[in-house]
Amino acid sequence: MSRYLIISSDCHAGLPTREYRSYLESKYHARFDESVRQNEAMRAELVKAGMSNPAFAKKWYEENEEGLRGGWDAARRDKELDADGVAGEVLFSDADAVTGQASAPFGAGLGMSGDSDPELVLAGARAHNRWLAELCAESPQRRAGLALLPSILHDPELAVAEVRWAKEAGLRGGVLIPAMWGSCAPYHDPRYEPVWATCEELGMPIHTHSGPASRDEYGGLVGLYITEVRWWCARPLWFLLWSGVFERHPRLKFAVTEGSCHWVPELLYNMDQVVLRETAGAQKLGPNLTKLSLLPSEYFDRNCFIGASSTKRREIALRYEIGVGNMMWGNDFPHPEGTWPHTKDWLRRTFCDIPAQETRQMLGTTAAEVFNFDTEALAPLVERIGPTPADLGQEEAQDLEKWRAAEEVGRHWLTGKEPIPTGPRAA
Amino acid sequence: MSRYLIISSDCHAGLPTREYRSYLESKYHARFDESVRQNEAMRAELVKAGMSNPAFAKKWYEENEEGLRGGWDAARRDKELDADGVAGEVLFSDADAVTGQASAPFGAGLGMSGDSDPELVLAGARAHNRWLAELCAESPQRRAGLALLPSILHDPELAVAEVRWAKEAGLRGGVLIPAMWGSCAPYHDPRYEPVWATCEELGMPIHTHSGPASRDEYGGLVGLYITEVRWWCARPLWFLLWSGVFERHPRLKFAVTEGSCHWVPELLYNMDQVVLRETAGAQKLGPNLTKLSLLPSEYFDRNCFIGASSTKRREIALRYEIGVGNMMWGNDFPHPEGTWPHTKDWLRRTFCDIPAQETRQMLGTTAAEVFNFDTEALAPLVERIGPTPADLGQEEAQDLEKWRAAEEVGRHWLTGKEPIPTGPRAA
Repeated sequence: MSRYLIISSDCHAGLPTREYRSYLESKYHARFDESVRQNEAMRAELVKAGMSNPAFAKKWYEENEEGLRGGWDAARRDKELDADGVAGEVLFSDADAVTGQASAPFGAGLGMSGDSDPELVLAGARAHNRWLAELCAESPQRRAGLALLPSILHDPELAVAEVRWAKEAGLRGGVLIPAMWGSCAPYHDPRYEPVWATCEELGMPIHTHSGPASRDEYGGLVGLYITEVRWWCARPLWFLLWSGVFERHPRLKFAVTEGSCHWVPELLYNMDQVVLRETAGAQKLGPNLTKLSLLPSEYFDRNCFIGASSTKRREIALRYEIGVGNMMWGNDFPHPEGTWPHTKDWLRRTFCDIPAQETRQMLGTTAAEVFNFDTEALAPLVERIGPTPADLGQEEAQDLEKWRAAEEVGRHWLTGKEPIPTGPRAA
Repeated sequence: MSRYLIISSDCHAGLPTREYRSYLESKYHARFDESVRQNEAMRAELVKAGMSNPAFAKKWYEENEEGLRGGWDAARRDKELDADGVAGEVLFSDADAVTGQASAPFGAGLGMSGDSDPELVLAGARAHNRWLAELCAESPQRRAGLALLPSILHDPELAVAEVRWAKEAGLRGGVLIPAMWGSCAPYHDPRYEPVWATCEELGMPIHTHSGPASRDEYGGLVGLYITEVRWWCARPLWFLLWSGVFERHPRLKFAVTEGSCHWVPELLYNMDQVVLRETAGAQKLGPNLTKLSLLPSEYFDRNCFIGASSTKRREIALRYEIGVGNMMWGNDFPHPEGTWPHTKDWLRRTFCDIPAQETRQMLGTTAAEVFNFDTEALAPLVERIGPTPADLGQEEAQDLEKWRAAEEVGRHWLTGKEPIPTGPRAA
C-alpha cells in the first residue's frame, strides 16, 4: 500500500499586513499607511462585536508562534506541511484568521466584494499577487497559488488581463473571485463572459472561499454570520451553472472552498428536478426553462469542485451523492478552524473506515488534476512525508461492506433507489 | 388502531381575484380595477419568463375544475378535504399557484415584501383577511385561517392592531409575515418587538411561507429561483432566534411552511456549535456571543415548527434530528405541488414503515396543539374520513428495528454518537 499524496486544497498565505507596503505601487503608500492605522482600530471593533476573542488569540499565537511564521516564510511553511503529511497546497490569501494581521491591503482577499473601492482593492490584490508569485516560485511543484481577482466585478476586461498576468506569473491555483457581487451585476451576467472564457483557455480554476456574508443585515449578531456564511460562499456556483457558463465552457473548473459540503446532495437533487420535471412543481414551469444540454448534476461532476477542507465524517458519508471525485480535502493551514498541526490524528479518526481508493482521490489525486500538480515530481516528497493507509488505520479489517448500500443508492433521483438513511447499522 | 387525525398545516384559500373587490374599501376600487388589468398582462410575462407553462395550466384546470372551486367555496372545499382524509387545515392565501388567478389585491399574500407599497398591500391584506374570516366562520372547528400581516415591516404598531383584529375575527392560524424585508429593517430589529409580544400573548403563531426570493438578481433564470426559494423562506427563523425573540417569548410559535426540512439538522448543528464552542471556529469568537440561555436547538424544539407539506421520505428519515415534534405535514391543497387529490396513496407510500405514534404526531397532533384545534369536536369527522394505520400499510409487519440506530444517534452533536448514515441496510 503506497503512501498517500496529500494536497491541501485550502491553505492560506499572506504577509504581515505592513510588509505588503513594498509590493504596492508607491502612489498608494500614503493611503496604505492610513488604512493600516484604521485596521488596528477595526480589530478593536471586531472584539467588541464578538467576532474575535482576545483570550483565544493570545493562546493561539503563543502556542503556535513558530508555525504561524509559515504564513509567509517558505522554509517554515514547508516544515509545517511536512509534519502534517501535506505534499502540495493551494494557497488562498489571509494567513491570519484570528485577528486579521496578515491581510492584503485595502480589503483585498477573502472579504472583498462588489462594494469594495475598485481602484484600491485592485491595488491591494496586485500587491498580494506579486508577493504570492514570489513565494510560489521558491517551490513551484509544491504550491499552486491563487490570484485575487476583485476586478472581475468592476472591469471584466481588466480582469482578463489580470488572469493572463497570473498565469504567466506561475499562479496556477487560479483566481479567487468575490463571493458577493454587492451592487455589481450578478454572475449570470454576460459581461463576465470574457473572464470565464479566459480562465477556461488558460486552465485557471475559479474559486470562491468562505468569508463574505450579508453583514449589513446582521445587526452585530455573530450567530447570523456563522449561520449564513457558507451559503453566501456557495451561491455563485448556481449562478454560473444556470446561466450556462459550464455549458459554454466545458473545461472550466469552479471550486467552492471552506463552505462545507453537506448541502451538495439536496442542491443537486433540487436542480436536477427542475430539468427532469418529475414533480408538478417543475412541470408547471415553462417549456423552455434552460438552454442547458446536461443535467445540473452533470455540470457539477464535470466543472465543479468542493474545497471541503476539514471534511466531517458525516459529509464523507455523503460522498456517493456529492460525488467522490468532486471532494477535495484541505487542512486550512494556518487557520485554527483547520486540522493543522494535528492533521495526521485527524486523518486517522476521519478516514479509518473509508476505502483507500476513495481516500486517495479526496486527499490528493483530484486536486492534483484540478491544479495541474506534477505528481511525479512530488513523488520523492510523498515518499518521505506522506502517510500510509496503515497510518490512517486502514489496514485493520475495514467494514467496507457497510458503504455498499449507500454506494448503490448514490444519487437516488437518478438511480431510482430508496434514499432512506437509517444511521449506522446496529452492531 | 384508531383512525388518524390529519391536519394539513399547509392549505391555501383565496377568492378569484376580481371577487376581492367587494372586500376592499371603496376608495381603492379604481386602483384595484387597474391592477387587475395589470395582473393579466403580468401573467403573459410569467409565461414569457418561464415561470408558467400554459399547457400544464390548461390540463390542470380541465382535470380539476370542480375541485379547484374549493379554493373559495367552503362546501366544495370540505368535499375535497374529506376525500383526502384531512379533518383540519391551516389556510394560507393564494389558492391558485399555477397562474395566480386567486390572489389578494395589490400583491398581498405569499409574494409580499418590505418593498411592497405600504398602503396598498395593507388594503389588499385586509380584504383577504375579512373574506377569510368569513370562510373560516362557516366551520371554525375545521379551519385555522392565517391573517396576512404586511404591515409588520412598515408600521409595527399598526401590525399589533391587525393581530388583535385577526384574533377577534377568529383567524387562529396566526399571521403570515413577509419572508423578505427588502429595504426595511431585518427581523432582529427591536422595532418588531411589540408584534412578537402580541402574537405570544394571543397565541397567534407567526409564519413564513415559500414564495418570495431575490428575483431581481436572477436575470429571468427560473432555475435560480427554484434553487434559492426555500432558503429565503427559512431565513427569518434564524434572525428571530439569534436576536433572542424566542428567549423573550417562550410561548411564541414560529412556523416555516413549504420550505422543505432537509436543511434543519445541519442548521441546528451549526447553530449549536457556536454556543457549545466545540470547534476552534467557535472558540475564536468573542466570549459574550449571545444573551441566550438555551441552545439554538432547544429554542427550535420549543418555539419552531416546520410546515413540511408533502414531506419526502428522506426527510422523514431525518426526523430524529429535525425533531419529530417539530414536523407538520400538509397537502398544500389546492396547489399542484401538493398531494391533493391523491393524498391517501401518497400517505401510504410515504408512511408505510413509520411508527404509528410518530405518524400521528406529524400528521396531526402537533398541528392540533400549535393551532389550537378542538380535537374532541373533530372526532366524529375523523371517525368518518380519517385513514387507519392499516390504510397506510402500517399493519403489516413493519421493520421498525431499522430506525433504532437513527433514533439512538438523534442529534449526534448532543448525543455524542457517530452520525454516519450508510443508506438502507442491505436485505
